[in-house]
Amino acid sequence: LAENPEIPAPYSSIGVLGAGAWGTALALTAAKITRRVHIWARDSAIADRINSTRENPAYLPSVALPASITATTDLDSATSAAALLVVVPAQSVRDVLMKLARVTRAKPIVLCAKGIEKTSGLLLTEVLQEILPDTNGSILSGPSFARDVAQGLPTAITIAGQRETVARLQATLGSETFRPYASDDPKGVALGGAAKNVYAIAAGIADGLGLGESARAALLARSFAELMRLGEALGTRPETLMGLSGLGDLVLTATSLTSRNHAFGLALGRGASPADLSRNPRPLAEGVDTAPALVKRARAVGIELPIAEAVAAILTGSLGARAAIVRLMSRPLTSE
Amino acid sequence: LAENPEIPAPYSSIGVLGAGAWGTALALTAAKITRRVHIWARDSAIADRINSTRENPAYLPSVALPASITATTDLDSATSAAALLVVVPAQSVRDVLMKLARVTRAKPIVLCAKGIEKTSGLLLTEVLQEILPDTNGSILSGPSFARDVAQGLPTAITIAGQRETVARLQATLGSETFRPYASDDPKGVALGGAAKNVYAIAAGIADGLGLGESARAALLARSFAELMRLGEALGTRPETLMGLSGLGDLVLTATSLTSRNHAFGLALGRGASPADLSRNPRPLAEGVDTAPALVKRARAVGIELPIAEAVAAILTGSLGARAAIVRLMSRPLTSE
Repeated sequence: LAENPEIPAPYSSIGVLGAGAWGTALALTAAKITRRVHIWARDSAIADRINSTRENPAYLPSVALPASITATTDLDSATSAAALLVVVPAQSVRDVLMKLARVTRAKPIVLCAKGIEKTSGLLLTEVLQEILPDTNGSILSGPSFARDVAQGLPTAITIAGQRETVARLQATLGSETFRPYASDDPKGVALGGAAKNVYAIAAGIADGLGLGESARAALLARSFAELMRLGEALGTRPETLMGLSGLGDLVLTATSLTSRNHAFGLALGRGASPADLSRNPRPLAEGVDTAPALVKRARAVGIELPIAEAVAAILTGSLGARAAIVRLMSRPLTSE
Repeated sequence: LAENPEIPAPYSSIGVLGAGAWGTALALTAAKITRRVHIWARDSAIADRINSTRENPAYLPSVALPASITATTDLDSATSAAALLVVVPAQSVRDVLMKLARVTRAKPIVLCAKGIEKTSGLLLTEVLQEILPDTNGSILSGPSFARDVAQGLPTAITIAGQRETVARLQATLGSETFRPYASDDPKGVALGGAAKNVYAIAAGIADGLGLGESARAALLARSFAELMRLGEALGTRPETLMGLSGLGDLVLTATSLTSRNHAFGLALGRGASPADLSRNPRPLAEGVDTAPALVKRARAVGIELPIAEAVAAILTGSLGARAAIVRLMSRPLTSE
């Protein structure tokens, strides 16, 4: 723990690319400090509604947005801000970064999505590196429901990247209640944020099967052990995975009934078919796409992830939820 | 992970010292394999009721106990069993071990309590070592609500001790649904089981204050970090604290509304005074006595535990719950 010796100037304006719940909550957070926050929305109806009603009723209803937040569908306008937060679904990050590459290459970019790219098996920090290799990139992640942040409940998250940039982001986003802590391990932050959604689906399945809280806790401890093994193989720091963006977020997502990934697993455990659940794309459960990508990435470095593999198999329909989880819970009585 | 090459013979009989919910659940588990299980109860009314009704309505109502389980207040009779499980409150472990030292010194003893001795600051494994230094001691701990175990829901726990003894205990207690994993780090298991109750009180306080699930998850990640620091200073293995008996049990106790320690914290967070809550001794929240003991033990090895210290201060009444938790959540924006 090293105190940042001096608090640098916050960014004068922030562009938030993505008008979902988390993007809106981060815009609100930034608006406490900076005078101009632009939300970029794909959907002009969403942008119009934000500008006319000062709310984002589709994603974060009943939360008032100050006049300093404006929404636009014009990427040039949104990216005129001093720093850019990318808050779109993980599988759309590449697309947005490619767009960004055409309009700006010099702005600090902060990844605020959680997932692994399904097509490539890349962590989002690696996608950024591939598309904008010279960019000053950071990643923001941690245990933080958008609604908790929007309501001003205390939350603590991690921002990883270059030290000076992270310090400016802390100054731009930090408040009494929203506490961003600095890290220099972006890859570890990206991994923890991605993997926790997969393990939250597993926890949800256990709950849906009615296995009880003890079983869920055991599954969670094993999930964390898997994550630590993979992190070691990928060269991330163990402290990162043990911290807010790893363990903290895993615990939040896997134990909360309001988590989308947990809810997806819960429905699976109660007997819904993966195909049925995937037909209705909202609310998005990032773990669905990330599960096979996580498994693929782990296999590439020679790591087996029994729980993530079970989730991936359940999602393809090749393994029943009950059979998979019961098998996980009745492994031979080895050493821990 | 090493497979136990051969499964040894289970113990022919088990003595369970303590007739609470957990003792009764473990007796039930042992009774699936062994033909004789003796429960030793201090209170003859409890023993009589178990023997006459085949239930323990005071602690584990509506769970049928087979005829192979008999209860007694006679320690000699209970300790005639081949192995002994000590399942009394942590602060009573010394007393029971002193009694045991008078009647038997050769039996394997399995500690099944969770706490640190308030008077001495000793972990329960150390109390055992002090009173019965030559005993073949083990410790059993992990995420397992007595009711989940009694109902046959899947649970996975840790038993730490001498390899052969642990293997026999696995053979005696293990079943399709109750999975004991082996460890050779009794001290780590003792520490994790003790500390989690303190951190569960902290989580309960946060919930009682209405801080939200994000805040609780952040607090939990920080609690785990504290525990890891203390474990390192005390020479326990990090893997133990990351496993079932550490992280697994921490997650269970700190996130479950049916956990006694969480419930105690919840009441504190909602404004009850520590004195009021302590007046009614049941259900026992082990973390209340363990909090100051944990802090004391940590200070002795030069480790600060901000969260455990806050809990201890709240319990003495020297610090208000809200002030303490808000202070924890608004630390300076340092590195993680």
